[in-house]
This record gives sequence, structure tokens and C-alpha cells, in this order.
Amino acid sequence: MPGNSFGTLFRITTWGESHGRAVGVVLDGCPAGLELKEDDIQKELDRRRPGQSRASTQREEKDRVEILSGIFEGKTTGTPISMLIWNRDADSSSYDLLRNRPRPGHADYAYQMKFGWRDHRGGGRSSARETVGRVAAGAVARKLLQERGIEVAAYVTELGGIRARIEPGDLARLRAAAEANPIRCPDQEAAVKMIEQLDAVRQEGDSLGGMVTIIARGVPPGLGDPVFDKLDADLAKGLMSLGAVKAVEIGAGLSCAGLRGSEMNDPFRMEGDKIVCDSNNAGGILGGISTGMDIICRIAVKPTPSIGKKQHTVDLETGRETEIEIKGRHDPAIPPRIVPVAEAMVAIVLADHLLRQKTARL
Amino acid sequence: MPGNSFGTLFRITTWGESHGRAVGVVLDGCPAGLELKEDDIQKELDRRRPGQSRASTQREEKDRVEILSGIFEGKTTGTPISMLIWNRDADSSSYDLLRNRPRPGHADYAYQMKFGWRDHRGGGRSSARETVGRVAAGAVARKLLQERGIEVAAYVTELGGIRARIEPGDLARLRAAAEANPIRCPDQEAAVKMIEQLDAVRQEGDSLGGMVTIIARGVPPGLGDPVFDKLDADLAKGLMSLGAVKAVEIGAGLSCAGLRGSEMNDPFRMEGDKIVCDSNNAGGILGGISTGMDIICRIAVKPTPSIGKKQHTVDLETGRETEIEIKGRHDPAIPPRIVPVAEAMVAIVLADHLLRQKTARL
Amino acid sequence: MPGNSFGTLFRITTWGESHGRAVGVVLDGCPAGLELKEDDIQKELDRRRPGQSRASTQREEKDRVEILSGIFEGKTTGTPISMLIWNRDADSSSYDLLRNRPRPGHADYAYQMKFGWRDHRGGGRSSARETVGRVAAGAVARKLLQERGIEVAAYVTELGGIRARIEPGDLARLRAAAEANPIRCPDQEAAVKMIEQLDAVRQEGDSLGGMVTIIARGVPPGLGDPVFDKLDADLAKGLMSLGAVKAVEIGAGLSCAGLRGSEMNDPFRMEGDKIVCDSNNAGGILGGISTGMDIICRIAVKPTPSIGKKQHTVDLETGRETEIEIKGRHDPAIPPRIVPVAEAMVAIVLADHLLRQKTARL
Amino acid sequence: MPGNSFGTLFRITTWGESHGRAVGVVLDGCPAGLELKEDDIQKELDRRRPGQSRASTQREEKDRVEILSGIFEGKTTGTPISMLIWNRDADSSSYDLLRNRPRPGHADYAYQMKFGWRDHRGGGRSSARETVGRVAAGAVARKLLQERGIEVAAYVTELGGIRARIEPGDLARLRAAAEANPIRCPDQEAAVKMIEQLDAVRQEGDSLGGMVTIIARGVPPGLGDPVFDKLDADLAKGLMSLGAVKAVEIGAGLSCAGLRGSEMNDPFRMEGDKIVCDSNNAGGILGGISTGMDIICRIAVKPTPSIGKKQHTVDLETGRETEIEIKGRHDPAIPPRIVPVAEAMVAIVLADHLLRQKTARL
Repeated sequence: MPGNSFGTLFRITTWGESHGRAVGVVLDGCPAGLELKEDDIQKELDRRRPGQSRASTQREEKDRVEILSGIFEGKTTGTPISMLIWNRDADSSSYDLLRNRPRPGHADYAYQMKFGWRDHRGGGRSSARETVGRVAAGAVARKLLQERGIEVAAYVTELGGIRARIEPGDLARLRAAAEANPIRCPDQEAAVKMIEQLDAVRQEGDSLGGMVTIIARGVPPGLGDPVFDKLDADLAKGLMSLGAVKAVEIGAGLSCAGLRGSEMNDPFRMEGDKIVCDSNNAGGILGGISTGMDIICRIAVKPTPSIGKKQHTVDLETGRETEIEIKGRHDPAIPPRIVPVAEAMVAIVLADHLLRQKTARL
Repeated sequence: MPGNSFGTLFRITTWGESHGRAVGVVLDGCPAGLELKEDDIQKELDRRRPGQSRASTQREEKDRVEILSGIFEGKTTGTPISMLIWNRDADSSSYDLLRNRPRPGHADYAYQMKFGWRDHRGGGRSSARETVGRVAAGAVARKLLQERGIEVAAYVTELGGIRARIEPGDLARLRAAAEANPIRCPDQEAAVKMIEQLDAVRQEGDSLGGMVTIIARGVPPGLGDPVFDKLDADLAKGLMSLGAVKAVEIGAGLSCAGLRGSEMNDPFRMEGDKIVCDSNNAGGILGGISTGMDIICRIAVKPTPSIGKKQHTVDLETGRETEIEIKGRHDPAIPPRIVPVAEAMVAIVLADHLLRQKTARL
Repeated sequence: MPGNSFGTLFRITTWGESHGRAVGVVLDGCPAGLELKEDDIQKELDRRRPGQSRASTQREEKDRVEILSGIFEGKTTGTPISMLIWNRDADSSSYDLLRNRPRPGHADYAYQMKFGWRDHRGGGRSSARETVGRVAAGAVARKLLQERGIEVAAYVTELGGIRARIEPGDLARLRAAAEANPIRCPDQEAAVKMIEQLDAVRQEGDSLGGMVTIIARGVPPGLGDPVFDKLDADLAKGLMSLGAVKAVEIGAGLSCAGLRGSEMNDPFRMEGDKIVCDSNNAGGILGGISTGMDIICRIAVKPTPSIGKKQHTVDLETGRETEIEIKGRHDPAIPPRIVPVAEAMVAIVLADHLLRQKTARL
Repeated sequence: MPGNSFGTLFRITTWGESHGRAVGVVLDGCPAGLELKEDDIQKELDRRRPGQSRASTQREEKDRVEILSGIFEGKTTGTPISMLIWNRDADSSSYDLLRNRPRPGHADYAYQMKFGWRDHRGGGRSSARETVGRVAAGAVARKLLQERGIEVAAYVTELGGIRARIEPGDLARLRAAAEANPIRCPDQEAAVKMIEQLDAVRQEGDSLGGMVTIIARGVPPGLGDPVFDKLDADLAKGLMSLGAVKAVEIGAGLSCAGLRGSEMNDPFRMEGDKIVCDSNNAGGILGGISTGMDIICRIAVKPTPSIGKKQHTVDLETGRETEIEIKGRHDPAIPPRIVPVAEAMVAIVLADHLLRQKTARL
């Protein structure tokens, strides 16, 4: 299969370039009978939309979703849901100089080597604008999860080396706290420092990396299809498929390397008639299958590669070394904007495995 | 699709339980005309085989591969290659007590909740014995990569908190250095300390976690299928699908969170008529596509969940809390034995994308 | 995978309902570098478009394709090609009565039982309007085939019991002869009789079935992936997935049942340095793989189920038997309009297998 | 995906060559909890086995299935079921002459052109022996269908031009009547004539074609995934993927071409509280979805291509025309032996769609 589809039963196919006519997604496999209106989608797209805060690019896009199929009288029909968002405010002029000069840290050179040529305008298909389709489909997945009492929330836990302190607790409250500042960090004090540092690097023409945590609560035990389509394997793929992500952790993640078995293992105990664990180093997944505990993922997000500083590169036409200065409008840090996208990916993976689980037993 | 297959064009399906009659793999999509003999496979299986060192379980398996199809007169025919390894030394008696008592850190409880019941003997399908099929198929992938001048090597870089110092250099030498000690760590001094610590925790009935690095060299630019089947996304899935892995890093990995764009970006320059980068924070992948630089992955491997210490669990039949002590034979640390398995997964992903790339251009 | 995608490497996903806002297709996997403009697509859509002749419905659709992605400066970029056609002339009022009364021979009842409810307007997703997306993608496939010297042509060979006499010969001429009359039958005399009979049954409020032949010439030997994705198996699936098709034949087809082996087998001989067969009972496919001879498919197309006559049905709400008379605008015979759709399906299957064949050998 | 797998959720992968060490199948996606023993499989394999009657080859194979995984204490565990059958009686000597001389009507030449070379012994992968894996997996599918009250039966309706007269009726009785003679034709009088004719052509060194009907009863309405994975489309693919099949019909099949809409449409009426049709021209499928009526398929089976008569061919090495006489042991007619294989394919398609239907509604 070509690479622009994701999911097995709840399956999305995204399309579109940054400066093409539109971007969109076709979602196939959503069960019939789910209540769905454009507002459910728009709400999430508005969270992803640029032009909202200091932390994001100044590009202005209304990003109004149009649902073109699959919904009738306010409910899904079981047929493909096609969603489209027009590109209205694309300004390609600042990209002309980059046609032959691949930007360091960007996909330009790699696309050129893969396809022999490329739509260079605004990064073309490799632009983060592609994630519009993921967020739109993720909004449908979220509706499906809500029917089953599953919540998904994401927030920034680290930016430019500043780490937030976050008390685990009610997910809705955590999400609200994150949405209360432009960094999307629930620790308001840390957020203030992050904003200060962000302003500083922006003025230097530089950018910051950070960490984002995604939590899913209420996931029933049993989701995930060993031995390859394990729940953590699919989450890792979904999250690593986001352009700026360089690491994915589940549960204890990297820190498990320094633990002993007696520290890492989460002992089982009863809570009423439910089996639970006190600790959650597993991140809610054992053997690739959900256990009913919180699913916990963390992603490392690299600093925005588009920086104002002069950078060294080569000219693809002449084969000579040269320099570039990237103009255009860019986020000085990706973590705040990746939050709704990461939520969408986790929601899509969970929705897919919810459906898959329906055939696990006779 | 059900979850026991991996890859798009170079596609493997593994089967078998730890204490069933056999384990195996069917590899479909291997091009015709590749020279292949049982020895190519056996060599890699011998590296994976238990019973070789202090670092691994004492279970004795000859693990002789039998190639049942797809090879004729020493070469692949383009038809499915079916490979089988009999289970000869399985001792299920020590598992009887565990039928109703899920082991902490193991897949037992999760399988029970997914399928309603399970083959509990030796962990059944969730046992690391399943990776025999991956290593067998990975050996074929490695042959395919060699035809294109691509090498893959993995080694342990951290165990029980002890970090190795490793000079990057010739891959074959690095691999030889790793194979020179039972830890598979190319830093011989660190290896000695790791062995000491391993002996200590074994006596306490405990286990250690660690880190493994996998490098692929000679990968041509252009591999990877955005936007979902990105090379790093598929590597992340392949590696996270290994039972003990809790984190996957590409290139700078987690550390990118603390970097600035001007530090993270790898500038392009010319080396003869080839475009290269001096640094490799990207780990050889930009926008999900290989750039020709080394592919660098790191995985965090949790400590062996099977420990001798008494652990808290519940009885699935009575619903009461209880305790277990795990007897049987177990590796006190997984990283040394996961090395050939991780190599196999990376080789399979690369072989798959080598084939996929053949249709990217007219 | 859900059911709205087709193809393995050259993969289409269609979406849209008859009376929804639009219909469309996303084509993923088309190689980069193929010259493509909207006219290439429009030309084929115009052949499919209703409102052109006596043989087709009077519904007026401009059916202007809009290419939204995947094309840059007149060539494919290797990224998904999204194509959209707005529904402008949909009149749902005549369908109101049919909400609870499934039409005999239509998908209404089956959709209701599958999804629990349905978009009943104009047949919703089950309408032949869905094939717009197939024809659009098929036009791209045709361009790809032309690069390799492969032609595909289809035409009507039987309608209402009248059989055409067709001399095999130059495909372009055959295609032109078919396009010269509204029946798309290259035998002009037979076409005249078919038109007469069509006019007669239309006045009776009835409809006619027929046969369509599809030929592909210039197909290189080697296409097709045994043992399940045989070329004939994929052609059978692609053609049987057209709503009105009830039988698919390859080569000698049904008549092979009455032949002896000595009659059926096509002996090989040399033609210059090429291996050919004099007869072609195999229809260009042996063991599921193309031989280089003409690929020959025939499909049986049922009479249009929408007829003016009163028909017996049941009311889904009341559970009582009742009657319906179908108003609206309908083709009195499907074969003429299925011709470009059948060509599209065959072209898509061949394009897919052309790409697949690139990885068959080392 | 490579071509040796079939099905979406109930998915089989077959492997093995006619004269290789073994043939087999891996079935992934069978729900946990299904009672299954080797006898369930063996029973069907015995029906397929050669050496039973005048109608089949004299090759002696015990064809004992070995279930290697996925079953524990007599029930499926939800993990892959690997089944293997050793090749014991393969005699390759009579094939030596055929290495460079493709047999007319066989896959030899096509495989050579696809893969560049081939395992020529006994037809290698293209041999009908490959269907052993299909029948084994089909036996599991049949068990799954029985749980839901679905029966599948197939029988010969035509051989060498002799047509049987068959009264539709109880499926079990029909199946028993078919199994009562070596032709597997429920019309005993016709069977006698068919046997006579078969004996006659065998003596001439020739072979006969025929027709087989497959009926599935008790299929619930709602199975099938439009618009591409329609139930009839998947049945057509599954059946056309059998080497000797040149045509697939559903319901009225080819004869629909001569019908009018008023004749073809099956009117709905009530039978108790169930919606039924009196006629069944649709063959139980409308719009690609089952309606609850009998599913009816017919396949045209070509005469055995291996005939004793001298045939014209070319020498692949010298490029010169030459002749061959096929020795070895061969069925003089395929229809009797294809009966259990065709049943298996239909059962597999239905089992797959039974599972798929579980996610169609919220």
C-alpha cells in the first residue's frame, strides 16, 4: 500500500500540499450511526489552526472544514467521510529561492531524492499543514471514543529545557489548564518561563524543542493486536509519523533502562471487582495490549527547522555549497501546536483498535 | 488485517507459541534470484539462541531452521519462503501455577482480557520465543541489503545504569567488538562492569534494563513513504513491537527537546559529488525519508519481568489477591539477546522500503 | 481494511453519495513524473457523463473534475492525487417515497440491513454515480499504461439478446467504431437494432441487459501475483465490483466448460524472437500471470433495475407488503455507460500490477 | 502486499511448492474460543486428496495435516493457526524434460517471464497442490460459519457438455448426493454418463471441462463491504484465483444479459416477519451486500491442461519450436476435485465478511 493511509479498520487517507488548492482526508470504516456535525470537527481544527498566539506562525487560515460525504441527517452512514479544507492564504513567493536549496532539517532534499523532483512551495506535501487532515479525522475518532467513555488529552511538559511540574489528576481539568496558555502547558508558572524563553530565541532567529505527554483514560483492557500491531507499536508509528517527533516513549519510557525488574513491574491488585496496578510503568500496555490503566505516551519534538539564521546548504542544480536565510512565517516552537495533532493520532489508533477488538473472540 | 504480519512488499507473518510444537515465519515478497541457504538463516538464529552465556536463559534449544518452500537450487523463486523451527526443550510444568496468576510486567493478564483465555505455557504467543521467526526473516532481509551494500549493526550501550563509551567507526569492527563479550557491548571495559552487576542482581533474583543502538549504513537516499509509512515511523513500529521495548529514538532522539534549531539542524555540504551532512542529529531521516547518512535508532529495553522475588498479583479465578514466585529459566537482562532481533527488525523495514522505492518514479 | 479502496500499489479510494455534495477519489501511489492535466481526466469523464444519448439518463451534470493535489507544473509529484466532482443537478424529491420502500434489484434493502439506516437519496453510496471516481482514476492509469505502450478498449457486444459481430483488429479503430453510436457497439448494424429495441422497452417502462468485452493489448508478460492476486482474480474482483455485473469471463470463459484440453490449450510458437500463441483461449493469462497475448474479459450486465413498471416490495417501517413505481431519470440499459467504467477498472488493475512487477526480481 | 494472502480479517497465507518439502497455510484472525481439532481439517483434506477415484490423479498422498500453533486444549486462542502437510510422494523425474519446455495451458511460461526462472518440478508453486492450504483454512472457516448456522455446498453441474438436472432442496442432502459418486454430481444419471465420457477421453489422452455450482445458505443479510470489497467481488476474486477457473457467475449470471428488468428484479415480500424474495436472480447479493437469500455462484472450469497428446511448444533455452508429451499423473477432469476447494474459498470469503460486519454499526 502507498504511504498516505493509516489504520486498519478505522482508516484515514490524507492528501494535499501546503500551497496546493486544498488539503483533506477521507475516513473509511467509521461505523454507521455516530452523531457527527461539522462543529465537532471545526472545534479541533481551531485548536490546530495557525495565527492564534505568540507560539505559532502568523499565517492566516480560516481552515473551515467541509464535510462532503458519509454524513446524512446528522449521523454517519458507514460510508467514507470526505473532509476538505481550502488553502486560502498561501504565499509561495518567499519560497522561490528554495526550489534548489534544500533547507537543513527539512524534508526538501529527501523528497527530491525520492521522487526526482518536488512541489517546493511551502514544503509541499511535507509541510505540517498536512496534519489538518489528521486532526479532522481525529475529531471523529474522539467522538467514537467518547461513546465508550474514553478521553484523550495532551499537553506540553518541557520547552527549551524548562520542565513543568504536573500533578496527575482529572483529565478534563488538565486539558483546560493546558489550553489556558499559548504554550499548552498545564503548569502555569512553567508556561510563563517558557514564553519568555520563546520570545528570546525568536528575536535571535532561533527555535526551541520540547516534550509533549499524551494520556488516554478509560481505555478498556484488550486493545492491541500482537505480535506486530501491538497497541504501543501502532502508537509509536502514529506519533513518529509526525514530522518533528524524534522519540516516542510509553510509560516509564527511556527511564526503564536504569530500573530493576522489581522496580519496573507493576503489581496487580483488586480495586472492588476490578484488577488494577498501583504503579503504571507499563503505561497501560502489557505485551502490546491495553490493561485498563492509563495509556501514557511522551514524544520528543525537535526545534522548528525553519530559523531566521543564515544556514549552510548546497544548490541542487549547480552542486555548489551555498547559504540560505529562511523568510516566511514559522512557529518558533512546535510543541504547543503539535498537542491537538498528537491527541488526534492517539485517538485514531485507539478508535482503530476498538473496532479491531470486536472480532477477537467468538 | 490481523496483527501477525509486518511489512508491505517484503512481508512476514510469524506464528507459534513458546511451548507449542514449533515456531515459524512465512516471508512473502522476497524478489526471485537471491542466493540463500539454510546457513544464512542459521547463523543469525545461533546469535539469538538461548543457552549461550551468563546473560541468557539456560533453556536448551538447537533451533535448527528448516526452509520448507520458496528456495530452489540455492536461490529464491519469488514465492513464499516458509521457515520452521521445532520446539524441542519446552518444559511447561513450572508454568502450571501461573495459569490463573498473571505475572506482573508480563502479557498474561492482557491476553486473558483480549481473548477470554490463553495458552499460558511459557507465555504462549507473548513469549520472546516468537522472535525466532523475525530473526529468520531478518536474515533474508540482510542478504537483500548486502546486495545493495547496506549493513546493519546493533550493540548494547547501557546496562543497569552503566554506560558504554563507543567510538563510531567501521561497522563490521563495531559488530565484532560487540560479539566479543556476552553483553554484546563493544566497550570491553564497560562490558566487564555490566557482567559484574548482572551477576549481582541475578543472585538477588532481580533483573536489569538497558539501551541498545542500531545503525544502518549505506542506505541510499529516498527510502520511506510519507506521510504515514515514513521510514522512522516504520522503524518505530518495528522496534516498539518487541515486547521489552518502552522507547524508540531516532538520531538525536530525546535530547532534541533541549536543543535549539541552530544546533539541531544538520547543514548540507558537498563531499565530492555527494551531498552529506557533518552532524547527524536527524539520524539519517528527514521528513520520513532516508538522506543517505547513517540511520541511527536507539531503544530502551525494560528489565526482564520474570524475577525470582516474590511479587503481588491476583488470582483470575477467585478474584483474590495473592503472590507468585517465578521459577523457570529466564534471562536476567534482555538487551544482549535483543541485539540480533533489533537488527532483524531494522533490516526488514529497510528491505521493505528498498522494494517500495522501486515504484516511486516513472 | 474498509471496502472503499482498491489496488495495492496504485491505490484508489472513492467517496461520495449520489445526492451528497460531491463525489471524488484519492489516488495514492502514482509514480512521480507522469505528465497529467485536467483534460486527460475530463475526456474520460465526458464519456461516462449522463445526458448524452438515448441510452442514458437525462440527468444533467457538467461533471467538471477538479484536481486538488498531487500535480505540480503539469506532472505528478508522487503524492496523493485528490480529484473532486461536485454534484450540481441532484433532485432528491422523487426519492422521498422510497425511504422505506426498497426497490427490487437495488441495494436499498441490503444497505439498510448492513448499516441499520442509509442515505436513500438517489441510491446514496450505491448509486452508479460513485463510478465517477473510478473513471477519473482510471484516466490516470491509462496515461501510465500509454507510457508502456498498453491500450485498453471496451465495447458492447450484446444488448437485449442482439449479438454483434465484431472482427478483432486494430484497437483504436475498434474503439472509434464503438464511440460512433450511442450503444457503443462497433457493429453498426447491430447497434441500429439495439437502439430500436431499447426505444421499445423504454416505452414499456422496462430495461435491457447486455454483454461488454474489454481488451488490453501490449501488456508485457509477467503481470499478476499468484496465488491470490492473480491478474485474472484482480480483474474479476474489479469488474464484479461494478453494481450491475453478474458474471465475469476471461478468455474462453464459460465456453471452456464444453471444450477438451486439446482444444482449450493454446500451443506456443515463435514469432521472430517472441513467444506467442495462435489461439487465445487463455485470454492472455496463464496461472494468473500475463503471457503477452491480448487480455480479454467479458462481463454480463444486468438490465437496469429502475423500471417504470409497478413492482412488489415491502414497507420497512410497517413490515407490510406494498408497491412502488420508480420515477426519476434512469438509463434504460447500462452496457453503453459501463463501457468507460469497465475500461477504467481494467486500466487500474493493470497499472497496479505494472508497479507490483517492478519488485518481482532481484 | 504480496499475492499469497487472502482475506481482510480472516486472513490466510499459503506457501509451498508441488514437489517441495511441504505445503501449508497460516490463518491469522480466527476468533478465540472456536472448538477445533485436526479431524475437522482432515475431513476436508480427505475430500480434496488425490488417488480416490477415476476422476483424479493416481498420486498417493496421505495428506495428514499437522496443526502447529493457535490451538490449545481443543480451542482456538486467537493467535495464528499454522497448518502443514508434508509432500511425501513427489516424483520429479518425469518433469525433467519440461524445465525448458513450457506446457501449453500451464503457468510454466508465465512464471518464467515473471520471476526470470522457476521451480519447474510438478508445476512448483502453480500446481493445484497449493490448494491444500486453502482447503485446510476453509475447514476452519466452515466451523466458524456453522456456529452461525451457515452451510456451504458445491457440486458439479456439467462435465464434457453433459448437464445435470438438479432440484434445489436441502443442502445436506444435495451434498450427500454429490459425494455419492466420483464426479460429485448430485444427478446420479448424469454422473454415470459423465464417467463414461471421462473414461473415453482419458483413453484418448485428452481431458474435459465443466461447471460447478456453490451455494451458501443461512447467510445473514448485511455481509459485504461496498464499493470494492463487495461480497460478489470478493467471491469472484476468490474463485477466479483457482487456476482452472475461467468464468464466475453470481445468481442469474451470464443469462442476465438476455433478461428485461421486469424479469431480472426479485420482488420483495414478507414471510412471517422476514423479508424474502420469491425469485433469486440476484444470487443473494444486492449492491454487493448479502440479502439473506441463498448465495449462488457458478464457475466454469477449463479442461485439465496436462494431456497425453503431443503438443506444440517452444524451447526456452534454444528459442526453437518443439513438441512435448506430458507424462506424469493427472486428473482427466478438474471439476470433481475443485468442489471442496471452491467450497473452501466461499467459506473463507463468508467468514471474513462475517467478522467485518461486526464493525459496520456503532
